[in-house]
Amino acid sequence: MPAEPSQAAGRVTISEVAAEAGVGRATAARTLGGYGHVSPELRQRVLAAAEKLGYRANALARSMSTGVSHTIGVIVADIGNPFFAGLVGGVCDASRARGFDTIVLSTYEDLDEEVAATNVLIDKRVDGMIIASAAVSGREVGHVKEALKRGVPVVLVDRAIPALDLDAVVIDNRDAAREAVERLIAAGHRRIGFVWGPSMTQPPATRRELLAAAARNLWTDGERLRGYLDALDDARIPFDPELVMVGRKVEERATEEVARMLALPNRITALFCTETEAMTGALRALRAARLSYPRDVSLIGFDDSAWAAVMDPPLTMIEQPVHGLGAKAAEVLLDIVQGAEAGRETHTLRSRLIVRSSVGPPPGA
Amino acid sequence: MPAEPSQAAGRVTISEVAAEAGVGRATAARTLGGYGHVSPELRQRVLAAAEKLGYRANALARSMSTGVSHTIGVIVADIGNPFFAGLVGGVCDASRARGFDTIVLSTYEDLDEEVAATNVLIDKRVDGMIIASAAVSGREVGHVKEALKRGVPVVLVDRAIPALDLDAVVIDNRDAAREAVERLIAAGHRRIGFVWGPSMTQPPATRRELLAAAARNLWTDGERLRGYLDALDDARIPFDPELVMVGRKVEERATEEVARMLALPNRITALFCTETEAMTGALRALRAARLSYPRDVSLIGFDDSAWAAVMDPPLTMIEQPVHGLGAKAAEVLLDIVQGAEAGRETHTLRSRLIVRSSVGPPPGA
Repeated sequence: MPAEPSQAAGRVTISEVAAEAGVGRATAARTLGGYGHVSPELRQRVLAAAEKLGYRANALARSMSTGVSHTIGVIVADIGNPFFAGLVGGVCDASRARGFDTIVLSTYEDLDEEVAATNVLIDKRVDGMIIASAAVSGREVGHVKEALKRGVPVVLVDRAIPALDLDAVVIDNRDAAREAVERLIAAGHRRIGFVWGPSMTQPPATRRELLAAAARNLWTDGERLRGYLDALDDARIPFDPELVMVGRKVEERATEEVARMLALPNRITALFCTETEAMTGALRALRAARLSYPRDVSLIGFDDSAWAAVMDPPLTMIEQPVHGLGAKAAEVLLDIVQGAEAGRETHTLRSRLIVRSSVGPPPGA
Repeated sequence: MPAEPSQAAGRVTISEVAAEAGVGRATAARTLGGYGHVSPELRQRVLAAAEKLGYRANALARSMSTGVSHTIGVIVADIGNPFFAGLVGGVCDASRARGFDTIVLSTYEDLDEEVAATNVLIDKRVDGMIIASAAVSGREVGHVKEALKRGVPVVLVDRAIPALDLDAVVIDNRDAAREAVERLIAAGHRRIGFVWGPSMTQPPATRRELLAAAARNLWTDGERLRGYLDALDDARIPFDPELVMVGRKVEERATEEVARMLALPNRITALFCTETEAMTGALRALRAARLSYPRDVSLIGFDDSAWAAVMDPPLTMIEQPVHGLGAKAAEVLLDIVQGAEAGRETHTLRSRLIVRSSVGPPPGA
């Protein structure tokens, strides 16, 4: 793990106050944290230094005097996933810049865990909550309505729930996917695989079946699939159900499905991968088939990372504004907590295609 | 983000209860979550199915009847870092398997944020807390002692604080680093760079200066450095301060420092990278110098990932038991919460060297 603190812009730290006051960090921490013994003289020096540097008193001290908890809650599907971890980082940064602490709960895409998490947050008296919900229909949102009924404002993040008339902060998944696939088409590709598609036990026979399955899956996944179809439609490339991966969304399955698509008589010449492990699974399939990119197969993936940039050749990736997504959700929520009217608006943040070297013409072109 | 739920072993989901009862997921969620309207007949069916499958009533429902909060808190340095995100995932899995919810707070390696987070958790009446502390000396742990004084048990994770007589769950950083460097030495290397070292403004003139700086840095970083020195000592390779990166721990700085080590008259032939971005920074420096691995420089890194396995050639990496680290910390804490005596023990989990193809003999050997 990293030792370097990730500093929020302009945030004065306890170490800086200690240095300014000419005292040890422990003395500054005791004074500002309000625990333990500090001599009146040192205490005075620390407080003067804190005031001079604009040190923010911690949220708890304030909540004691105001009766407001100055805490918000975030409920995410899987805190172990770097996407959500980054999103939570954005929430924390934006909320502490406004003097709020953030409590995080993870649900593992399980609706009953989400219900329990909502109840925990109500119980812990948060001032508001941000939810990346596992609910896929308006009939699964009773717990969200319950929170609202109890006066706890809710902002949705990453996933819109059209049936709920709530503020939501999302990424332009559909446009981002369309742009990526358009770039593959512009390079001359017409056989473009999509990894990964909706969870289905059987491959879809028709486009209608595929979209029906997508509607039972997560909103983000469906949006990315629709973007893929948009680009094919615009280029009048007929949809081929054989080029969409279905099944469990795990790396091994992506490898199997890409191997299958590479073995088709009219094989894929390009791949659009909607997740990190869809991409790493695809790369394993290419290597097993002794194919290289972009010579044999062009590649574009979702979710840029330090690794994608050092692959050889470097990968063209969609960069999601993960931190910004969390920060924006916190800002929308805190505006409501601090008196603004709930906007019932969907705020869409733009992702960005980072063009590197994994797209070329189809082989033989 | 992923659509596939990460299932805890044996955990019965609301969907399974719904299927067993022959009702919709929303009906099951309403019944089990205790909100909204459900007809008595359907309610009865859901409860029967829940009992049959061994569905666990959510923690909040239980806390209402027992007066215990059934919530634990985790304080980590940076939730946006995949290491801590994975660790938190382990805490959540282990604690919910025992009927506890987990609340997470992130401190960004800032001691005053950590003090505030501790206060928030006390305020929210958690039953115990797990802390990856930014404190580097026994004089900075007043807030931890305060929590203990208020009867809230604390378990340290990832970072031991020798001055505190507390249970701690850590990884064998020193042994893991020694094993990695020994492997490089066994392949014939004697000029082995260490990226990244402690935060220092000036390169250390001596080994003593370096170790003194390490003692002011995080425990984990110091342990990895000591493992590197152990391996050199055992092989009677003299320590060369020019081969240790100092300065800010960011990817760009790793690239600069590796470029410097590659330009030395007696240049490095191998690198041990202690973080993901130390490795990606090193890879950028190799590429800029038109060198390849393992032909020109051998590489071993810390923190395995799906990407490291699909690099070409695949990278030899140390895999930390990240999930297990969090899970073990939760187990130790919950044992104490549920009546076991605090063991005041350091539990050390073993990491694993995943041997792939980034180590070879030095050039010309």
